[in-house]
Amino acid sequence: MAVIRIGIVGLGAQMQENLLPTLLQMPNIRIVGVCDITAARAAQIHRFLSDVPVTASVDELLTLTAPDALVLACPPQAHRDIALQAMRAGIHVFVEKPPCFTLDELEALVLANRQSGVITGVGMNFKFAKPIRQLRDMTQAAPFGRTLHVQLNHYASKPRAPLWGLDSTLRSFLLAQAIHTIDLGITFGGGELTGIRSRVQRYDDSLIVNAELVFSSGTTASLLCGTMFPYFEFDMKIVSSTSMMVELDNLWNITIHEPEHGTRATGTAKRWRGVWQPGPLDSGYERSGYYGELFEFFEAIRKRETFNANFESLLPTYRVIEQICAADSQDIGVVQTFALPTLHATSTANPGVVSNVL
Amino acid sequence: MAVIRIGIVGLGAQMQENLLPTLLQMPNIRIVGVCDITAARAAQIHRFLSDVPVTASVDELLTLTAPDALVLACPPQAHRDIALQAMRAGIHVFVEKPPCFTLDELEALVLANRQSGVITGVGMNFKFAKPIRQLRDMTQAAPFGRTLHVQLNHYASKPRAPLWGLDSTLRSFLLAQAIHTIDLGITFGGGELTGIRSRVQRYDDSLIVNAELVFSSGTTASLLCGTMFPYFEFDMKIVSSTSMMVELDNLWNITIHEPEHGTRATGTAKRWRGVWQPGPLDSGYERSGYYGELFEFFEAIRKRETFNANFESLLPTYRVIEQICAADSQDIGVVQTFALPTLHATSTANPGVVSNVL
Amino acid sequence: MAVIRIGIVGLGAQMQENLLPTLLQMPNIRIVGVCDITAARAAQIHRFLSDVPVTASVDELLTLTAPDALVLACPPQAHRDIALQAMRAGIHVFVEKPPCFTLDELEALVLANRQSGVITGVGMNFKFAKPIRQLRDMTQAAPFGRTLHVQLNHYASKPRAPLWGLDSTLRSFLLAQAIHTIDLGITFGGGELTGIRSRVQRYDDSLIVNAELVFSSGTTASLLCGTMFPYFEFDMKIVSSTSMMVELDNLWNITIHEPEHGTRATGTAKRWRGVWQPGPLDSGYERSGYYGELFEFFEAIRKRETFNANFESLLPTYRVIEQICAADSQDIGVVQTFALPTLHATSTANPGVVSNVL
Amino acid sequence: MAVIRIGIVGLGAQMQENLLPTLLQMPNIRIVGVCDITAARAAQIHRFLSDVPVTASVDELLTLTAPDALVLACPPQAHRDIALQAMRAGIHVFVEKPPCFTLDELEALVLANRQSGVITGVGMNFKFAKPIRQLRDMTQAAPFGRTLHVQLNHYASKPRAPLWGLDSTLRSFLLAQAIHTIDLGITFGGGELTGIRSRVQRYDDSLIVNAELVFSSGTTASLLCGTMFPYFEFDMKIVSSTSMMVELDNLWNITIHEPEHGTRATGTAKRWRGVWQPGPLDSGYERSGYYGELFEFFEAIRKRETFNANFESLLPTYRVIEQICAADSQDIGVVQTFALPTLHATSTANPGVVSNVL
Repeated sequence: MAVIRIGIVGLGAQMQENLLPTLLQMPNIRIVGVCDITAARAAQIHRFLSDVPVTASVDELLTLTAPDALVLACPPQAHRDIALQAMRAGIHVFVEKPPCFTLDELEALVLANRQSGVITGVGMNFKFAKPIRQLRDMTQAAPFGRTLHVQLNHYASKPRAPLWGLDSTLRSFLLAQAIHTIDLGITFGGGELTGIRSRVQRYDDSLIVNAELVFSSGTTASLLCGTMFPYFEFDMKIVSSTSMMVELDNLWNITIHEPEHGTRATGTAKRWRGVWQPGPLDSGYERSGYYGELFEFFEAIRKRETFNANFESLLPTYRVIEQICAADSQDIGVVQTFALPTLHATSTANPGVVSNVL
Repeated sequence: MAVIRIGIVGLGAQMQENLLPTLLQMPNIRIVGVCDITAARAAQIHRFLSDVPVTASVDELLTLTAPDALVLACPPQAHRDIALQAMRAGIHVFVEKPPCFTLDELEALVLANRQSGVITGVGMNFKFAKPIRQLRDMTQAAPFGRTLHVQLNHYASKPRAPLWGLDSTLRSFLLAQAIHTIDLGITFGGGELTGIRSRVQRYDDSLIVNAELVFSSGTTASLLCGTMFPYFEFDMKIVSSTSMMVELDNLWNITIHEPEHGTRATGTAKRWRGVWQPGPLDSGYERSGYYGELFEFFEAIRKRETFNANFESLLPTYRVIEQICAADSQDIGVVQTFALPTLHATSTANPGVVSNVL
Repeated sequence: MAVIRIGIVGLGAQMQENLLPTLLQMPNIRIVGVCDITAARAAQIHRFLSDVPVTASVDELLTLTAPDALVLACPPQAHRDIALQAMRAGIHVFVEKPPCFTLDELEALVLANRQSGVITGVGMNFKFAKPIRQLRDMTQAAPFGRTLHVQLNHYASKPRAPLWGLDSTLRSFLLAQAIHTIDLGITFGGGELTGIRSRVQRYDDSLIVNAELVFSSGTTASLLCGTMFPYFEFDMKIVSSTSMMVELDNLWNITIHEPEHGTRATGTAKRWRGVWQPGPLDSGYERSGYYGELFEFFEAIRKRETFNANFESLLPTYRVIEQICAADSQDIGVVQTFALPTLHATSTANPGVVSNVL
Repeated sequence: MAVIRIGIVGLGAQMQENLLPTLLQMPNIRIVGVCDITAARAAQIHRFLSDVPVTASVDELLTLTAPDALVLACPPQAHRDIALQAMRAGIHVFVEKPPCFTLDELEALVLANRQSGVITGVGMNFKFAKPIRQLRDMTQAAPFGRTLHVQLNHYASKPRAPLWGLDSTLRSFLLAQAIHTIDLGITFGGGELTGIRSRVQRYDDSLIVNAELVFSSGTTASLLCGTMFPYFEFDMKIVSSTSMMVELDNLWNITIHEPEHGTRATGTAKRWRGVWQPGPLDSGYERSGYYGELFEFFEAIRKRETFNANFESLLPTYRVIEQICAADSQDIGVVQTFALPTLHATSTANPGVVSNVL
């Protein structure tokens, strides 16, 4: 299969700004049809490609164009339903995140995926961002030793109201934003996730979420995220058993602190660190991960390999999301608007928000 | 009392590098005697001041020089014992941190302090560091709103063995290093400390400590610290109810992220932030807090006011230290060298490492 | 003309990495043919678009596809010759920089441009980079006042040998690299260029170029560039008559230093500055200017307006290039490999270094 | 001479804020007397030292206290006159910068210094600042190769009127501020200064000075300084023959860019650089150079060695200052308030801008 034939579903902002530009410059694929419930929006594709059929019906898209794969950027319920439809039809499917609302729904998607045998993918672009790959290479290099702790800070300013018809702003935030951070925690954590502890603070319509993840490898990860912040930013730090600490600021600058670091002109001296930044003209969609996620999804189709951001890969992430929501809802009765006098101590059966059996 | 007459006890590295230079340039005090168990070290004072009597005996120092105040930089047991002796003698006393080993000992010091009525102080220089004061001014300004969360990262590379005859590296680290960070968490937290949760990870002779503090004000604070890092560094972030986030890097650079921030030439625009840094020639002992801590201690003596880093001020900090040690020791049986499969879940009476009654 | 029909000439690295990805995601244009002297390279277009005719002959490209516009990324001699051919044929033409080797050649291109009336453009992407536009907006805002001085630092590590069959590494460097920096100096300088002074230092096969430009507006600009540096980087600073200084680092971070700058939480205080940086997911080709240069070129075609990076816009830049080369060649006799004992002498024997009449 | 006996002259802001605190903590010296034309100001010393005689007369200071050395922080005319008096009396003398107004005056001081044989020093603290020493070590290490170019940016906001009874704001600025930057240019330039070129731009009461220095070593240095900037800052860059570039920002952060730089975890990779910064508690007077300048001055007295910031060391710096003033004054007639249409002309009518024979 030299050229993969793609059907696009949902030509909204995320598709137009990130996925479509990436698809248009992706080698060896062709966009063969576009579907959007708003016909005029689907027709936007003609600004870029002349002869692509557009439709408001997924059924028609599949019938007319018989695509090898679908790429979706819709609300989660459409991701879920159309992914199920595509998998039943033996069509590979890539959905923007989140793929669905709940762990139960995700398990249904995973089951369908196993039954159909197609390649599935979710738009976890952070995981494929170029600097995150650099971090993975660094942390897997022998001199780095074992990863002991990962600190992830994900600052957001929205959503401050529920999305997609949900009744929970917390779940909306976790699915729309924190999903990336949790996934990175799990990616760098390694091994099985054996414990979660979390706390949600609220102020007006905003929230702050603190969570701690523990892995069978002995690695721990702490997450600070929420919608209480002025604008979207992201930073993370990883501490290793060889006393290295690598930090990533804004998906852009990497700094490595090592016990011994030097330069040709100084030799080894204290308080020198290594800093990496891209060149002035670094551009395109590799840094933000949009290129990587789609490129590897298509490569997985070509090579019949598992794509490492498929539905199944998100199971631990959704377990964390469910735990955070459950722990928070159990506290609702005790916590006043701004008073947070107690830690989440829920029951003797579940001391704190700790769960060792996931 | 125009001029305060000072006796110095302990002329080791910390005194010589930080406290003594600060004292030498402090107005309206006089160093009237120096005591050190090593006579040759006490005599080092003559490099700076000609006619100061030196002795190896605290008793002799007190008898000979009748100081108004003592300034100590010794091991904690000496801080504790000499402070008790000074308080009994009605002499004001300032000790380098830590003032003692345990909460019980600190309570004894506090009791003695109340009985004697002298001014006491502990060298919590971080609290008096110039950028920390700037942060306090900022967070107390009306537009900042309420402090919701404080993140404190304190990276250290030592001690990797117990200090001062203790048998616990953890307690040694908490007393020697994390004491500052815990104290800052309490300083910015506000209100009563109502909950603590902590986790200690170990690798070889190094450790990582994660802790979370909850305050009656609703503020939370998270601490990441330990000896697993390549060298000493420090950063912190404070998030407010008006969606401001202020960060301090390396006790040097302050950055404020606000929803609206602009310049005269741009007007308000997104992703602008305010950054402060000292001038190129900023020097002296104000930035690091050594000047501020001593200056305010002496001012408190002159004005007969409470010094806000006195023995009593450290009670919540020592409560946190005791909790971290207790929670860790209860886990010792279960935790293997590097495996950390469970969160600290100690008993049903104390679910997790949560303690609401301090 | 809703859709502009484009012929591509030259499918080498620069086209494949920057211009082609940008064109593929550009609305309302179509690539109708591709020409490359290497047929296999031209056929690379089929990885992205199925039915585009490819050819090794520009004549054939024009005959077969009758494009509205050509976009070229070739050696300069091809830019020059094919641009002349296209202009004669009434076809709009956009060439990657440099458009030609000498000022004389550029003047010939400008003359042909005037005669043909087509829209021409050169790939001066720095000028269209998003942060450079932000700087232009800032410097043109009333509170900024007048631009007094511009400092431009352009660090490069190549070329260290002549390019394109030229015999001068200096001219090759100026055309391949410094052309951007000189153009930015002229862009921010304003008014007529009334003076140039330059100095070239050589070491082995590398060089450092210092130049100073003076404008009729009273603005001055200084340039430090060359091939002596470890890798490509870029920074610039602009000082205004209201004592503002704005700096751009790496085409990424903008900092504005103002006499008065504050935050909501601090009020105005000294040493606060405003810092801007893009969001973590900022991606695509807008930051590096590749999108802007092509988008505005096509807009100019649609609106029949002058494109502000056309051949004529580069006349002052080429004058500077010629002056730097001329001044350097007059010095060649005196300057040994590394010895630079004299400034460009003031006598009439070497008048070329300073020129007030351009 | 174990302990050096010091007389202080001038207890104004610079002495109180920087020199006196440094002296008070300097080993093996004693302040034996203080002189200030304002008696009350001289008496300020009693806030720190009880029994030091104070006087308003230098003669009396010398007679009463017979000091080994004087340390002065006065207006330049007092530096000059009292230094001459001290040297005649065989007393070592250290003056804050500037030591005098003109090159002629400096030559008189140098002559007197040679005749008297005492140790002299000027408060060139930048030269002794800790990061500048690190830069000197780095640039002198073999792998760095030869220094090819030094770029110095010294941003100031004052003086905007003449100081010390002078009639020239330019000369006042050069003596009060740029003296450091010029001195650093000469320090890192190496060899004989063989050429100077300069330009002064004026706007209202502010000015911008650009200058270029050429050395017999082949090194060039460019300086951008002036009073047009919002506040005092400083940065510099040094480019070497091995394609290293080291930069110093704000006398604080050092960055080294090398063709090959890596970390233990990454190996060598492109765009990694080495960054150094001091620890969070770095304090005292070493970073700003006040400690180093005085410590080395006293060491020179003890060891009877030349102090490398003595009067003679400033001769090339004053030559540059004289050249900048001369070149500027010859231009005054032609340059209107803001119009700077011409470069410094090359004709014999204005030969002073460029001088190859110093």
